[in-house]
Amino acid sequence: MTVLRRHPDVHGAGLSIVEWRAIIDSAYSGAGHGAIRNVDEARGGHFDAIFVGGGSAGRFGAAVLRSLGGRALVLERWPFLGGSCPHQACVPHHLFSEAARELDQWQALQGRLWFPPFDPAAASILELVQLFRAQRSGPHAHMNWQSADQLGIEFVVNTEAEVLDTRTVRAAGRAYTADALVLATGSRAALPGIEGEGLPGVFDYASLVEDLDYEPRRIVVIGGSKVAVEYGSFFRAVGRPTTIVSRSALLTSGGPARMDADLRQFVVDGMRTRGIDVLEHSVATRIVGDGRVQGVEVLTPSGTQFLEADFVLLGTGEEAVTDSFADALPLRYDPRGFVAVDDRMRTNLDGVYAAGDVIGPPMEMFKSRRSGTTAARTIMGLDAEFHYQDIPDFLHTTYEVTWAGLTEDEARARFGDVATIQLPPRGMSPGDTPLPMAEGSMLYGFTLPERTGFQKCVIDPGSRKVVGIHHAGYGAKTAFQYLHHLMSRPAGLTIDELGDMNELYISSDYFVGYARLRANQATLTSM
Amino acid sequence: MTVLRRHPDVHGAGLSIVEWRAIIDSAYSGAGHGAIRNVDEARGGHFDAIFVGGGSAGRFGAAVLRSLGGRALVLERWPFLGGSCPHQACVPHHLFSEAARELDQWQALQGRLWFPPFDPAAASILELVQLFRAQRSGPHAHMNWQSADQLGIEFVVNTEAEVLDTRTVRAAGRAYTADALVLATGSRAALPGIEGEGLPGVFDYASLVEDLDYEPRRIVVIGGSKVAVEYGSFFRAVGRPTTIVSRSALLTSGGPARMDADLRQFVVDGMRTRGIDVLEHSVATRIVGDGRVQGVEVLTPSGTQFLEADFVLLGTGEEAVTDSFADALPLRYDPRGFVAVDDRMRTNLDGVYAAGDVIGPPMEMFKSRRSGTTAARTIMGLDAEFHYQDIPDFLHTTYEVTWAGLTEDEARARFGDVATIQLPPRGMSPGDTPLPMAEGSMLYGFTLPERTGFQKCVIDPGSRKVVGIHHAGYGAKTAFQYLHHLMSRPAGLTIDELGDMNELYISSDYFVGYARLRANQATLTSM
Repeated sequence: MTVLRRHPDVHGAGLSIVEWRAIIDSAYSGAGHGAIRNVDEARGGHFDAIFVGGGSAGRFGAAVLRSLGGRALVLERWPFLGGSCPHQACVPHHLFSEAARELDQWQALQGRLWFPPFDPAAASILELVQLFRAQRSGPHAHMNWQSADQLGIEFVVNTEAEVLDTRTVRAAGRAYTADALVLATGSRAALPGIEGEGLPGVFDYASLVEDLDYEPRRIVVIGGSKVAVEYGSFFRAVGRPTTIVSRSALLTSGGPARMDADLRQFVVDGMRTRGIDVLEHSVATRIVGDGRVQGVEVLTPSGTQFLEADFVLLGTGEEAVTDSFADALPLRYDPRGFVAVDDRMRTNLDGVYAAGDVIGPPMEMFKSRRSGTTAARTIMGLDAEFHYQDIPDFLHTTYEVTWAGLTEDEARARFGDVATIQLPPRGMSPGDTPLPMAEGSMLYGFTLPERTGFQKCVIDPGSRKVVGIHHAGYGAKTAFQYLHHLMSRPAGLTIDELGDMNELYISSDYFVGYARLRANQATLTSM
Repeated sequence: MTVLRRHPDVHGAGLSIVEWRAIIDSAYSGAGHGAIRNVDEARGGHFDAIFVGGGSAGRFGAAVLRSLGGRALVLERWPFLGGSCPHQACVPHHLFSEAARELDQWQALQGRLWFPPFDPAAASILELVQLFRAQRSGPHAHMNWQSADQLGIEFVVNTEAEVLDTRTVRAAGRAYTADALVLATGSRAALPGIEGEGLPGVFDYASLVEDLDYEPRRIVVIGGSKVAVEYGSFFRAVGRPTTIVSRSALLTSGGPARMDADLRQFVVDGMRTRGIDVLEHSVATRIVGDGRVQGVEVLTPSGTQFLEADFVLLGTGEEAVTDSFADALPLRYDPRGFVAVDDRMRTNLDGVYAAGDVIGPPMEMFKSRRSGTTAARTIMGLDAEFHYQDIPDFLHTTYEVTWAGLTEDEARARFGDVATIQLPPRGMSPGDTPLPMAEGSMLYGFTLPERTGFQKCVIDPGSRKVVGIHHAGYGAKTAFQYLHHLMSRPAGLTIDELGDMNELYISSDYFVGYARLRANQATLTSM
């Protein structure tokens, strides 16, 4: 094991993932190290670009800049690259959502097959948080190892960076210069600004991971978008009474504003069936407590309610983190406080770019990575643009919920009549058929057929193109990356091309097989 | 509920799935009905094509023939359309494999989180078989409903068909004629031809589903290809001591002959780690019993062994079912007894086509369906060909294992040097990194990182095309349908196009993200 001094220079040390993990763990415990430098000092302190922030935008941007022959430096306050995703956001969320899927299945199948009666004391939110907290440096270490060893990225981590001007950044007592800066400092949870939001027992997605030290027993989630739905589903699956308080109808604003109405209905019905109390068109007006949270006052369409709670999760949006550069740079921001950029990730300041969460929603990995690589390409003189109006999207309840393209309503508005392929078939009670039973919902297919999922494909009968795909189930999320790409080509994806593919039966989506059943129809009809 | 007489005519009755299910259940119990007819008698008894066999080949072929304006009749001995897949083959296999995945997880995580100590008495092979048997008419009913209601297919089910000549088939006392016949009668398990194979306690995939009436305690599986691996993994996951006896190295012959060596290694190592006893290069010479099976005599490279067993599964291949036409038609067969066809599914007899399992391997859904639709298109005068040399493929252990394109060895033979993108990284101990932790393996990522999976992308650095993809994990199987299609285009799929897609993080494959890390490299390097 390599022993490191304070402010160690690890350049060329060839650290293994196991060694990186020990370094990150000791840095995080406060026991050791200041800044950890992986910089080729022989090449001096000037770079083609400095990425301020080593999350996915900075890391992917730096990798591509280097692929193009440039020299990149990444500066990061945490002792690892990869950013908030593996530390507080998407990775723990996926761990919790997988636990939710398993625990939901246990509740659903209790007393059948090998499932004993469900025991809400068996699973613990605290234990899952502690498991994540104890093990999260594993992915962190992989990122550092990969960045240094496989990608050849230069970086200084475990240090606060301070932007001095459009060409100079100070970190760990050194000033580094570059021809370009890429601001990629991310986002954090935005507070709703209500009384009591600072009480112990009130958390956001990040402080949940960092600070939880007791087992929540009765939960209120404030918010109606992805974070609220995902964490609310998790808490309920563990067996905790959970209420979601949402200003608008659930999943109709914020991130997933363009969910197909039938898909949304399946998802929200499923949440209610599982016992989640959903208060829509309701506003949390005050969090009540006496030293710690005791409940939430809510204004509902039928009057004021008091919801008892020993745990409140705020899922009320995110704001840009600009501390390290706001004073030094006269940047233009959008109305919500995110750094304004154009399609090439250029800010209003010459040579200053921004990427990742700091430029605003969607707060998704592909946007973060691709905005970082777009900045890198632009800096290196390539003709790079990145548009993210038409994107695939997803969320978790106890299902993977994924969609891309147009909703049925949008398609009808655009094309007039449309053909749809849908499972369960339109108008049929989901309990009357086990379909779309598939990879991941086989046990339900033979026990609780109404739980197998929902899928819909929307086709413009004129062009025969697939214009929208919508799915709740398991195992189709990854497929939507490629389906969306096929749909986004200038030629689009016709139902006939789809039907000529080779399906891997039982696939989680029935799109290929059902398209084949309708292929060759001169006038497409729904099914 | 519609009440049906013997030999009922249900044409135009508009039966619901629930009504179909009652009919199928009573037909299957032997209580009621002879042939069930859904034929438009007003149009007479002559068709453009008769599909002999109502499995996926016949059903999809008939749907497409009808889409093209033709009149099709499907004849089927079982009381439902859909064939062996939902009755004895892929659907129960997927149910069992999903149970295997869940029970394997329980064994792996016992004593952690909410998982109690694993109890081999908790799960029962018999109970899962009985569950499937009791509920399988659900999918069957959906197929009948869909075929009649959504696809408008004419059919006679629950009757043996007898082919009289190349234009005439008799079923349920009626002779139907057609301009073309499509033979789609499927396959059944082939017996190895060893002493004792007829003993009670010796099963194949079909008789397991039909006949099992006791709980297997000690299991021997004979065979080394998909069926052996899939069912062996299931039996072991339930907690039963299981030995697989394979003539060659596991997964090197039969169906999946082209598995990448690293993928195969991950899969076979994983099976051994889970306690499956794998005897390779070994031949079962005799099944021993006294009224019922007691064990298997095996010739291994180190001598003869006797394996005690109260249950033996034969996974020794399949043979064509030709009973209904072999005497009447002077067909040409291939050396293994499958009906010989050309790329348009034409047999040696004018106007006689064949499709599905009866034409030989691969015994997969896409081949069955597409061969059926190719026959239909050919019959209707379209220029249709179907080649299935380059196909995506998959199997289950307790993982979904999926691959398409070239193995790394094949790619090296063809292109010289290749670039690979691999997780866990080449040469690294899988326990040293939680990656490729993803959707479906999140719990493992934080507990048993060596179990998260394996993935490899093989790239020809000259053309920058992705030429092979290989995956063991969860949730990527469906994606391979579309990835394979992208790779199979004349332009192929370059690493740069792959890297420009929008990934849905955490996706089950890391292909998009890692391609992006390598995109723009002038000379591609592996990672």
